[in-house]
Amino acid sequence: MPASVQLGTGQLPIDQSFSVTAFHDRSLNEEIIRFEDQLHRQTGIPFRGKPGAAPTLTVHFNHGRETVQKLGEDESYELTVTDSGAKLTAPTSLGILRGLQTFLQLVEITPTGFAVPAVTIKDQPRFPWRGLMIDVSRHFIPLDVLKRNVDGMAAVKMNVLHWHLSDDQGFRAESKKFPKLTTMASGEMFYSQDEIRDFIAYAHDRGIRVVPEFDMPGHSRSWFLGYPELASGPGPYTLADGGIAPAIDPTREETYKFLEKFIAEMAKLFPDAYFHIGGDEVDGKQWDANPKIQAFKQAHGMKSDQDLQAYFNRRLQKIVAKNHKTMMGWDEILHPDLPRTIVVQSWRGQQSLAAAARQGYSGVLSYGYYLDLMWPAARHYAVDPMSGDAATLNLDQQKLILGGESCQWAEWVTPENIDSHIWPRNAAIAERLWSPQNVTGVASMYARLHVVSLNLEWLGLTHRSARTLMLHRMAGDSSISALRVLADVVEPVKDYDRWDETKQGPIDFHAPLNRMIDAVYPESDTAREFAAFVQAYVQGGAKDPVAEAQIRASLTLWRDNDARLHPLLEQSFLLQEDEGLSQNLSALAAAGLAALDSIDKAQPPPDAWKTQQLALVEQAKKPQAGLLLMIAAPMEQLIQASATHN
Amino acid sequence: MPASVQLGTGQLPIDQSFSVTAFHDRSLNEEIIRFEDQLHRQTGIPFRGKPGAAPTLTVHFNHGRETVQKLGEDESYELTVTDSGAKLTAPTSLGILRGLQTFLQLVEITPTGFAVPAVTIKDQPRFPWRGLMIDVSRHFIPLDVLKRNVDGMAAVKMNVLHWHLSDDQGFRAESKKFPKLTTMASGEMFYSQDEIRDFIAYAHDRGIRVVPEFDMPGHSRSWFLGYPELASGPGPYTLADGGIAPAIDPTREETYKFLEKFIAEMAKLFPDAYFHIGGDEVDGKQWDANPKIQAFKQAHGMKSDQDLQAYFNRRLQKIVAKNHKTMMGWDEILHPDLPRTIVVQSWRGQQSLAAAARQGYSGVLSYGYYLDLMWPAARHYAVDPMSGDAATLNLDQQKLILGGESCQWAEWVTPENIDSHIWPRNAAIAERLWSPQNVTGVASMYARLHVVSLNLEWLGLTHRSARTLMLHRMAGDSSISALRVLADVVEPVKDYDRWDETKQGPIDFHAPLNRMIDAVYPESDTAREFAAFVQAYVQGGAKDPVAEAQIRASLTLWRDNDARLHPLLEQSFLLQEDEGLSQNLSALAAAGLAALDSIDKAQPPPDAWKTQQLALVEQAKKPQAGLLLMIAAPMEQLIQASATHN
Repeated sequence: MPASVQLGTGQLPIDQSFSVTAFHDRSLNEEIIRFEDQLHRQTGIPFRGKPGAAPTLTVHFNHGRETVQKLGEDESYELTVTDSGAKLTAPTSLGILRGLQTFLQLVEITPTGFAVPAVTIKDQPRFPWRGLMIDVSRHFIPLDVLKRNVDGMAAVKMNVLHWHLSDDQGFRAESKKFPKLTTMASGEMFYSQDEIRDFIAYAHDRGIRVVPEFDMPGHSRSWFLGYPELASGPGPYTLADGGIAPAIDPTREETYKFLEKFIAEMAKLFPDAYFHIGGDEVDGKQWDANPKIQAFKQAHGMKSDQDLQAYFNRRLQKIVAKNHKTMMGWDEILHPDLPRTIVVQSWRGQQSLAAAARQGYSGVLSYGYYLDLMWPAARHYAVDPMSGDAATLNLDQQKLILGGESCQWAEWVTPENIDSHIWPRNAAIAERLWSPQNVTGVASMYARLHVVSLNLEWLGLTHRSARTLMLHRMAGDSSISALRVLADVVEPVKDYDRWDETKQGPIDFHAPLNRMIDAVYPESDTAREFAAFVQAYVQGGAKDPVAEAQIRASLTLWRDNDARLHPLLEQSFLLQEDEGLSQNLSALAAAGLAALDSIDKAQPPPDAWKTQQLALVEQAKKPQAGLLLMIAAPMEQLIQASATHN
Repeated sequence: MPASVQLGTGQLPIDQSFSVTAFHDRSLNEEIIRFEDQLHRQTGIPFRGKPGAAPTLTVHFNHGRETVQKLGEDESYELTVTDSGAKLTAPTSLGILRGLQTFLQLVEITPTGFAVPAVTIKDQPRFPWRGLMIDVSRHFIPLDVLKRNVDGMAAVKMNVLHWHLSDDQGFRAESKKFPKLTTMASGEMFYSQDEIRDFIAYAHDRGIRVVPEFDMPGHSRSWFLGYPELASGPGPYTLADGGIAPAIDPTREETYKFLEKFIAEMAKLFPDAYFHIGGDEVDGKQWDANPKIQAFKQAHGMKSDQDLQAYFNRRLQKIVAKNHKTMMGWDEILHPDLPRTIVVQSWRGQQSLAAAARQGYSGVLSYGYYLDLMWPAARHYAVDPMSGDAATLNLDQQKLILGGESCQWAEWVTPENIDSHIWPRNAAIAERLWSPQNVTGVASMYARLHVVSLNLEWLGLTHRSARTLMLHRMAGDSSISALRVLADVVEPVKDYDRWDETKQGPIDFHAPLNRMIDAVYPESDTAREFAAFVQAYVQGGAKDPVAEAQIRASLTLWRDNDARLHPLLEQSFLLQEDEGLSQNLSALAAAGLAALDSIDKAQPPPDAWKTQQLALVEQAKKPQAGLLLMIAAPMEQLIQASATHN
């Protein structure tokens, strides 16, 4: 949602005569080709390879872009569309990129053709840092998948790809100085330096900075396969280890000699001004078990492992600064000994961010934006970097809150399903970070999200299509229509409940992710829309026959679904665990239909029936096979209503 | 369907411990990686990047492959699968490629895991030439789209990609000797020589030969934009011209000097032993209108344009032979003056092919395999290269029938929908050319086709997924569920009926192909399955309540669909033309339901009703918006049955 929108009258037709003219530099030339390609994909109209036509959209800007995109570089633009043409202006060509994406979002099909409604838009971002973090360590994500996600980010005007390149389970960026980082700890799945440069250029072309993260001193087991001398405890190390998380030894001078060379190499490879050193969740057990490290702490008067980490970070910060970079890290790096130039990324929340800002530190919010926790878009959307404690900051402190970053940790994603874990929910976070603070309506957000989600498919994202393939895999050569009905109304368990399933040991990162929980969308549109229907129907005194018909149609489909689906579930080892879910769906729907009948006849059901059905609801709310049946709550509402509306 | 299959007992589990061991050369090593990747995509199980395991599938072959794949190179293999392991053996590594594809086809999901059933297969192809021709002139098809189609060909064991690189509408292969062929006649959409070499290597890796076609002397307008001196009539020429099809001037020596250089260059670029010169559909008007050409004919005692073309072909054949290639061309090149080494590709039929064989010419059948004519798979499947006149050939003559080639002419396809025009129907043609002649059962063919179609999606082919995107485009942000119901029961008009729509002038190759006719599948599975249900129900005396319930469910869905769909059709300019179709679907379904009711009550409907409904059927059988409503015929059957079953 742009900062300012004024609707005009009429519309600009988009047909084969459409063309763009710009006074542009070379990079914008390519962006306009991409814009035309995208417009072609959306409409099916070929615009290229045809003779020149009168320009429909004219583009003007005053300055080209920075060679290395800067934090806070002007992204504003103005777009005016009338029934005879469109004009896009911006102070910089970066703003033009943003405005072209807005134009693409405005294209709609009408009874007379494709068109953009007449409109005047003045737009600029609320926050300068609008990022998506992708973990490529736990599961490797190839560059083609990253690139299409960058296309998605550009479509929703995000501007930072935070690349979580190393963690316990894999080291993914080639170092020529320390080749064993990838030869021994990537399973041959890593990015070469040429590929990294190519990817950074790709992102830059789309107005996106790439900030690398090398997590240290914790989350660093992968470093030790090739370089065990960096570790605080004896090896040998393997990627599959569970148990104590190893940490880099911050007491040896050789560690800093290594990091001097490594960071100098990476600082050259990654041109962005920011360099992320991780710093989260350091497990002190290895430090505590090492007498030399304990002696070092004592000798330097350090009281805690936090003090030791702060010492490490001070040393690290000097190396990063020597390479002309700003150091960035997670909450845990915050320590008064560090200079105010560092940036804190908060997974802890606005309180932590506000506390940092009061001490003069810049910060980026990630708390509330963890896509891997399977929250609905509305819940992410409600999280504002400036709310809570941050709302009490003074103006100067407020400016230190740079924005936010959604996070896609990769314990439970593969290249096959990562798109559906990121999209479309990430677009709601992108809007939170771009649009004015007072744009908070959830219903209109979901309406926009639906359109954005459709448009993202034209970029090659597979957030919707991958599920079809995964359902086919589970179903063999049987029809997936009944399976799709079940998949439409379930969601994976939330927060860290899936991690809890593996309490008996570490996650097996080589295990197949081919279950129903891996295929379904994190958020069920079907269940959300059904709940809204039931809510409106019940609140309206159960008097709306159209709403009732809608509800009844869904309930009938679901009631009859288990009979259709059951034979398939038995035939497939991957689906057997979903038998209970399917039975519950049909049983709940039958209860809902009985409740509707009872409301129709104005005959409240017997108390015993109600008690029994509510017990069924409670049982159906429990996760099965890692899945939640999302229509349990609205069904409870219908059953309750049947006892009162009569 | 392999040449010989013996089912065993039990099954071989496919789980994370699966691995392949081969005594292999480098090219097979890559094929095994691709095999494992494909097995990974099909099952979701990661096989790479894990520690070594005991081999499950062992692979043995005696000889490596030819550097340039030869016609008739041994493709046979034997595959034995037991519950404890699998063994694949072949005389050549080319046979191994074929056997690995068979193994992938055998993987199924079971109640206990993924598995391959115990089986012994001895297999070899019936014909050595099993091709797919793709026209990239009328609409340019980028290499990534061609590559995924090559993957599909390899999956169904086709072995020749015939690349129709030039035609009136575009010249697509870079010539360094004659650069204006592409700079002036490709709209910047062509393949560079590096890309061509890369593509040939890609195809070779998958056991597929690449045969280039440069169509001459007709279908050659694109040559004349850059080199008008080759033409038989005065220019200037543009790609968009309609009217008289220009032809190369076969009377000028300069023409042959040009072709000497051009063919020498292309013969080096394309390593295959065969070189296709087109030769089809020469329009003699330009020759007739040129007095110099007429004088040449007279001077050389040529009675017809056919004689002139034969003269051209003799000259051409000598040039091709000088470059160590075998000349190939369409039916029209056949002329007793040409040596018996040439190969005739027949679009005319088995009669033409048999006539050529009787004269000693080799041939490849394409009649009956034109994918662009929108035939159902069963109709293509019924066409056998050895049937009709060819069945009467003696053994030596029979050996001259090398096989067949499906053809995807590109008047009505774009990169977006070409996959769905080729697949899955092309797999039925592939089976006709590989499997024994007596494998002709249509029901079992469709059962296999269904499985193959699902597997092809794992290769990245978009023959099913593209329709979803195209329906979304037409529907804007509305739900496509009702639109999908309509799309499921229609097919594009057959044969050249779509060409007939454009009688007023030449096809506009820059026009968008974004209508319903462009989105729907060439063959409706839904309609075919419904027709089979109705057929079985009516033939069984209308006594099967399960069949009746199935039929009734479909009819109810269709009857109610127009009410759901109508508002959407009005909102979209691309869908307005489908309003009549949607109304007809609902009206026909209502008639079908009434017929069913009448059968249930054993009350034959009044004659007037029957007459009226049959008139409705007749009207609904007429194409609308280029689409045929494929349930009209079974509905007629139901209405007829209601008047007799009582």
